[in-house]
Amino acid sequence: MMSELVILRHGESTANRDNIYTGWSDVSLTPRGREQGHRAGKLVAQTGIAFTDVHTSLLQRAIETTHLVLDECNQLWLPEHKTWRLNERHYGALRGQNKDWTRQVYGERQVAQWRRGFRVVPPLLAHPDHEQDRRYAKLPATVLTRGESLAMTLARLQPYWTDVIVPNLLDGHNQLVVAHGSTLRALIKYLEQISDEAISQVEVPNGQPIHYTFNHKMQIVNKEILSQ
Amino acid sequence: MMSELVILRHGESTANRDNIYTGWSDVSLTPRGREQGHRAGKLVAQTGIAFTDVHTSLLQRAIETTHLVLDECNQLWLPEHKTWRLNERHYGALRGQNKDWTRQVYGERQVAQWRRGFRVVPPLLAHPDHEQDRRYAKLPATVLTRGESLAMTLARLQPYWTDVIVPNLLDGHNQLVVAHGSTLRALIKYLEQISDEAISQVEVPNGQPIHYTFNHKMQIVNKEILSQ
Repeated sequence: MMSELVILRHGESTANRDNIYTGWSDVSLTPRGREQGHRAGKLVAQTGIAFTDVHTSLLQRAIETTHLVLDECNQLWLPEHKTWRLNERHYGALRGQNKDWTRQVYGERQVAQWRRGFRVVPPLLAHPDHEQDRRYAKLPATVLTRGESLAMTLARLQPYWTDVIVPNLLDGHNQLVVAHGSTLRALIKYLEQISDEAISQVEVPNGQPIHYTFNHKMQIVNKEILSQ
Repeated sequence: MMSELVILRHGESTANRDNIYTGWSDVSLTPRGREQGHRAGKLVAQTGIAFTDVHTSLLQRAIETTHLVLDECNQLWLPEHKTWRLNERHYGALRGQNKDWTRQVYGERQVAQWRRGFRVVPPLLAHPDHEQDRRYAKLPATVLTRGESLAMTLARLQPYWTDVIVPNLLDGHNQLVVAHGSTLRALIKYLEQISDEAISQVEVPNGQPIHYTFNHKMQIVNKEILSQ
């Protein structure tokens, strides 16, 4: 039995526009980001895929994009699963800082490592800044993160992929995942078995859906980047 | 322990605007309906209630309104539960017909009974028109409805109220319900123990939130209609 997976990074957020590290900060889409969400939705709708579930993060920019896509696909009624495991990589103390500014302060090379080194952890926060946030109230303290490498992001994403999304796909149920740049880079690395080095070259643009088809052994039999 | 419940009818739909019986037909909000959703969201936000769950139907007009309200409340991340049990009353063979036209054809008195008689069933469809709809695929055939009275609507709504919403309220978790005119009339009848006759006088306008406070015995200790 074949099954379809579409993964999508949210549309442009205010932080994307302002060139700021975001991570778990909760920012909304820009008008351009909403337009990207609509366009992505139309591309997904053109595939004609009937999804059974949609998965997204606890962050507004991904949830807003999810709603725009489901609306365009006429599938707003789908069960919508929101999980911190699909949250963007936590950028630690870089969160809220301008990317150009960090280059000036820390140097081009250090910043490139933080951004693209698979196992490189950003400068950590002294305390998890989301521990007062009601939406994370039921997370064990060990999970409260002060900053993550891409490897750490993959590690906390993987249980959700394995325990929730894969069983659905193996049942032939098509799945839609709307998440974030780093979360999706981590997922793509895992799905396509990309090396720690090569993943540094992979970019996931805002609002560009990627459509995978899996066989009954969860092997990728087709990959298509949806575009106009 | 006190708990808060806010119930809200969706904003104006295209069928509301065109004065058409809708029921389980899936129509979208008008621009005015979206504006009502935003305004309702601002009113709910002003209460400062921190919800733990939102419940809505499988119908687009309610889901769209839910998203507008959650956005205004900054609580888009809440778990969103969608159920056919909160769907609008199924209007049977009246579905899709203009209300004035039915008055001309069947007479004012008959139409008033269909609309307001608690146990009056509308003319039935020959076959449930939603049996081909994927979102209802897992409903047993006995549930596929060809038309409902308000009493029948209450009967299928009640298990969801009792089994899902009440336990949350008794745990002190504030709940938001975004549904439909007849579903909410049925729920209000049940909550406020309104007689079969008196419920015919109760109207639930589009986009006007009603805020109930319950005590630990699920008795209503306060009711407030939110308005500007």
